[in-house]
Amino acid sequence: MDNPHSETIDLRSDTVTAPDRRMRNAMAHAVVGDNVLDADPTMAELERTVASLLGLPAALWMPSGTMANLVAMMLHLRRGDAFLAPRDVHILVDELGTAASFAGGMPMPLAHDAGPGRPSPASVRAICPPRRADYNELDVTLLCLENTHNAAGGAVMPPAEQAELTDVARECGLRVHLDGARLWNAAVALGVPPAALTGGVDSVQVCLSKGLGAPVGSVLAGSEDFIRRARRARQMLGGGVRQGGILAAAGLVALDRIEQLAEDHEKARRLASGLAELGWQVNQPETNIVLAEVPDATSAIARLSRYGVLASEIAGRLRFVTHRDVSLPAVDDALARIKTWLHADESMVLCRKSELYQVKG
Amino acid sequence: MDNPHSETIDLRSDTVTAPDRRMRNAMAHAVVGDNVLDADPTMAELERTVASLLGLPAALWMPSGTMANLVAMMLHLRRGDAFLAPRDVHILVDELGTAASFAGGMPMPLAHDAGPGRPSPASVRAICPPRRADYNELDVTLLCLENTHNAAGGAVMPPAEQAELTDVARECGLRVHLDGARLWNAAVALGVPPAALTGGVDSVQVCLSKGLGAPVGSVLAGSEDFIRRARRARQMLGGGVRQGGILAAAGLVALDRIEQLAEDHEKARRLASGLAELGWQVNQPETNIVLAEVPDATSAIARLSRYGVLASEIAGRLRFVTHRDVSLPAVDDALARIKTWLHADESMVLCRKSELYQVKG
Amino acid sequence: MDNPHSETIDLRSDTVTAPDRRMRNAMAHAVVGDNVLDADPTMAELERTVASLLGLPAALWMPSGTMANLVAMMLHLRRGDAFLAPRDVHILVDELGTAASFAGGMPMPLAHDAGPGRPSPASVRAICPPRRADYNELDVTLLCLENTHNAAGGAVMPPAEQAELTDVARECGLRVHLDGARLWNAAVALGVPPAALTGGVDSVQVCLSKGLGAPVGSVLAGSEDFIRRARRARQMLGGGVRQGGILAAAGLVALDRIEQLAEDHEKARRLASGLAELGWQVNQPETNIVLAEVPDATSAIARLSRYGVLASEIAGRLRFVTHRDVSLPAVDDALARIKTWLHADESMVLCRKSELYQVKG
Amino acid sequence: MDNPHSETIDLRSDTVTAPDRRMRNAMAHAVVGDNVLDADPTMAELERTVASLLGLPAALWMPSGTMANLVAMMLHLRRGDAFLAPRDVHILVDELGTAASFAGGMPMPLAHDAGPGRPSPASVRAICPPRRADYNELDVTLLCLENTHNAAGGAVMPPAEQAELTDVARECGLRVHLDGARLWNAAVALGVPPAALTGGVDSVQVCLSKGLGAPVGSVLAGSEDFIRRARRARQMLGGGVRQGGILAAAGLVALDRIEQLAEDHEKARRLASGLAELGWQVNQPETNIVLAEVPDATSAIARLSRYGVLASEIAGRLRFVTHRDVSLPAVDDALARIKTWLHADESMVLCRKSELYQVKG
Repeated sequence: MDNPHSETIDLRSDTVTAPDRRMRNAMAHAVVGDNVLDADPTMAELERTVASLLGLPAALWMPSGTMANLVAMMLHLRRGDAFLAPRDVHILVDELGTAASFAGGMPMPLAHDAGPGRPSPASVRAICPPRRADYNELDVTLLCLENTHNAAGGAVMPPAEQAELTDVARECGLRVHLDGARLWNAAVALGVPPAALTGGVDSVQVCLSKGLGAPVGSVLAGSEDFIRRARRARQMLGGGVRQGGILAAAGLVALDRIEQLAEDHEKARRLASGLAELGWQVNQPETNIVLAEVPDATSAIARLSRYGVLASEIAGRLRFVTHRDVSLPAVDDALARIKTWLHADESMVLCRKSELYQVKG
Repeated sequence: MDNPHSETIDLRSDTVTAPDRRMRNAMAHAVVGDNVLDADPTMAELERTVASLLGLPAALWMPSGTMANLVAMMLHLRRGDAFLAPRDVHILVDELGTAASFAGGMPMPLAHDAGPGRPSPASVRAICPPRRADYNELDVTLLCLENTHNAAGGAVMPPAEQAELTDVARECGLRVHLDGARLWNAAVALGVPPAALTGGVDSVQVCLSKGLGAPVGSVLAGSEDFIRRARRARQMLGGGVRQGGILAAAGLVALDRIEQLAEDHEKARRLASGLAELGWQVNQPETNIVLAEVPDATSAIARLSRYGVLASEIAGRLRFVTHRDVSLPAVDDALARIKTWLHADESMVLCRKSELYQVKG
Repeated sequence: MDNPHSETIDLRSDTVTAPDRRMRNAMAHAVVGDNVLDADPTMAELERTVASLLGLPAALWMPSGTMANLVAMMLHLRRGDAFLAPRDVHILVDELGTAASFAGGMPMPLAHDAGPGRPSPASVRAICPPRRADYNELDVTLLCLENTHNAAGGAVMPPAEQAELTDVARECGLRVHLDGARLWNAAVALGVPPAALTGGVDSVQVCLSKGLGAPVGSVLAGSEDFIRRARRARQMLGGGVRQGGILAAAGLVALDRIEQLAEDHEKARRLASGLAELGWQVNQPETNIVLAEVPDATSAIARLSRYGVLASEIAGRLRFVTHRDVSLPAVDDALARIKTWLHADESMVLCRKSELYQVKG
Repeated sequence: MDNPHSETIDLRSDTVTAPDRRMRNAMAHAVVGDNVLDADPTMAELERTVASLLGLPAALWMPSGTMANLVAMMLHLRRGDAFLAPRDVHILVDELGTAASFAGGMPMPLAHDAGPGRPSPASVRAICPPRRADYNELDVTLLCLENTHNAAGGAVMPPAEQAELTDVARECGLRVHLDGARLWNAAVALGVPPAALTGGVDSVQVCLSKGLGAPVGSVLAGSEDFIRRARRARQMLGGGVRQGGILAAAGLVALDRIEQLAEDHEKARRLASGLAELGWQVNQPETNIVLAEVPDATSAIARLSRYGVLASEIAGRLRFVTHRDVSLPAVDDALARIKTWLHADESMVLCRKSELYQVKG
């Protein structure tokens, strides 16, 4: 393992996963080409593979999920269009506002009224206009979903519920973009193939460098025409790379590991129940994210890090993300360190479980 | 009166007010200059007058409140900054998304948790970051307020409450823009000078063509430096006009009529209590806007118009706005027509009073 | 006359023209409506009249030519498209870069290789791509023309020459926008109706507040669909005004005065030949603009203003614009003052006639 | 070699260079971290190394030169600013207009009046305003240079000449960005260290994936503060990658090969003199780019490809770029194939040498 901080247990994100030997070997032997001038063959293979996994006609590699989402927003929105998205999705709070500033969209956040991270079909229908927008009215043209929903603790939206949302969206003339940065986790948690979660969507982006462990890359999928236009948008943003096959080779290895995400989910459940035993208010993790209510997340992160456990903050909560580079014993070790910390640190008064998670309770 | 539909009672908006004889006379005799090349003297007088009324150093005429708000957003926001605004304000729902697409801001809507149209200081403080945004974090830099709040039924935010909000904003390093399209109404309702409502704000825009009856124009006010930069932004958008003194002359007449807005408020109270007597669920108007809950606002507007009463729709409710071109007897006439309509139209089943207005009740 | 500097002769621009008694009277009696909610009848009449004069299906009032050009660019260009325009046109140098920053267009300036302000059809054809742009290639989609060409001294492009350019544009798949801020002058100079100068264009904007003397306003014309979309774009920019009929009434009076522009052209010829007699290198004015070569235009303007003659600077030259508020005797007076100045001011050494104007010579 | 078309000689661009064994080995063993959350150590080493080579305080890896240029433009320009750049630079013609559409800059192209790709200091000074821009005037704030200049045939701008340009820029209050995608080639051709070519610039971008052969990546360098802000802009565009150390490791190997670019220059001279012997009008290559005048470049490329020689088109000319993956014997082979082609293909009539290259002659 390359991590120079071998003593620390890094649960900040599944993005910290480093490529392993097999992946590095694949990169070292990848067949490459100039992917701006013509096709890099390994890149092309990766894109075909992901399109097939997602049950969509075409796909395009991107240097990051942020760019994949931005390209999708640029293509779906005309300047001044409005879009719906569940409150606190990545596209609204974690992408530096580019859905607004670059793609030109005015967001209309939806409440999580059907469960954590899950807006109800009724909430979409309520905004569905009875007629076409007049020239001086905001035109809502897009619904964005996120599955799993990061800020809601890796919450999974089941296919039937997602289908209801996309059905309402169609009815209202909305296109649908799915931020599937952790779609693989949702599929594994549900025990369905990833393509079962892309029904009714116009575009979806998936990540290769989170739980799957590739060093760099996300993939945007959609129709042939959508991907043709996405290639131009990617080039505008500077996301066209040359011998990208090096990275695509790692991506192909990553895709073999989707089923292994089940282990991360097991680790999350172990961590959550350990924290609950310590009296913490935590979510019941459906995938690989544990959220804990603390009085001051920023301060808690700093103090916990002195015990060699790294966490992050999301929407005021402490977030632990389990992944392939932290084993089950390491999760137990993390729990032990947290216990030591809590014992030593009297200022650590925990909050009540928030209403959000009672919904799931 | 120039209105060709003399039979109809137009309560869609106070923007329908037409210039009267005195205003037209002022326009006909206005001293003008080329306001792009140098100053038009009447324009300059209007701008000085408004700045003084608002207690701010400088002001700039704009062709519309939409442009005034857009210029303010362009100057306050860097591309990718986030801004806070109470849910349903004009800048979020009625300006075709330009705060996002042109000014590049990512909105974060605030709940009306202190009353209709009024977010609590705590809700602002909750977003106030404990430290400067990291390079990859959304940077919240602006708080937008709207007083009176249109979609909340012309609700007034009192100076003390507004001051608490601007104080918290300062503390959190946020600038403050006030959309005061109907600030005159708020001042009259509260019995305070308009300048009492601009404490702690960095910029404010006020409208001359709503209740005050000027044909065209809004004014943006702020610091000398802000207004110097606003002049450039206005020129970019194409809002620099030549012999604007014609319109400014009407604006100066309009400013003489601020106190007369009290009559519009009286008319709104009369209309609201008449509607309540008919069994309608309506707000208790603080200014000149009456909102009524109806099952289907779009349909209600169409059917009511056949009785010669024009209303508009806002956030799913029926909106009646009283103004100088509809007299108190005309309001009574409108009530009579609505009564006739309700008698004839059995499909007109009214909703329960919404929670929003119970807060004020 | 309202000008407070009655002693000065203001030749900075034809935009300084003030509305006269007849125009003010028309404004005082204009029938108006709320032009954002529905149609203001006088505005509608103005728009129909201009569309008819230009031989185009529809038209829309704008607060300025800058906004009219910006709206046209926003509608014609997708983000990242390139457009062709003769070097130094208003849209490139006098609109604060909004064709790039707001409309998102990458300009490709054309040389004036067919005469002052006039690119050759060959220069357009040279850029005409042999095939559709590849995904990573700049896509040229628009040709902008300006007639008369301001920076080239009010130079006129004859209909046949303009038709050749628009023909090549069609052939290359380019749309055509015509900045006709002074199209009326071109039509009068050529002795043709304005509609003779809009053949083959997709959109054209004309100004009411330059030589025609209206206080405020330009008009954008094009197809019904184009104008429908322009109304939305105008609203976004904040150019939708309420009782605009006041200004439209002035515009209707202004349109009666197109033929009178011939007098301005006569004044320009008188001024140019007077300056030439003084040894100045000037253009042979085709319309109402006289350009003179001077060593330092900024300084010359300042010094000349002390003699009560106001001029402006354009592309390093001294610009005099004749208009309805400066009579023929006033032009002679201006010449006399210039003579006095030159006599007194030894530093005033004149440049050689530039190559640009030798083309016309 | 991974190229599946082993028979073809690919001279389209030096971007086609594939990573060799040593580079692949470095990638396979790179120490990595999550470069969005904290620093990836190999990335950090690469950035320090490039900053040092360029003599600038700080540097930041980018997925492409297009993104590096775009980030620089976004940071240097406020919306609506104008910038100067020599005609035909990459930023104007090869980046899909993003300097305008995303960075919001209005370009003002400069003639190559001091030599191919080289504007004169006088041409910059001519635009240098005598005073600060008025509120309604275009504000020129940036000078962009490109060294070597691609479209001018890899033309080199000598340090003294570049210094004169940056001096004038300072005098006029302009910042300076240098597109140094092939700065390494310029340094090698001149026999100076790369840092000798960054004097007086505010930012510079260099490419690792052209002649140096890394698979992916460019680096933007400038002040500490500039790079701090660039990190945020890169994140907005989606250029923040996770375990980027994989690619940085290749970049570090690439930097060892700067001196080897001399071989590419030798190959270009060989190719150019061979083509000249065949009667072609070509430039005298200063670095690794050979431009040939042909009647129809698009057609010539297609026909030549049937002989297994790949070229590209730039500004209407045929472009051959020599690089590490085409050996000197392969260049001779390419010449032989071109000779065969010309013999067989009677339609191949060559143009006269253009004026551009006579300047250098």
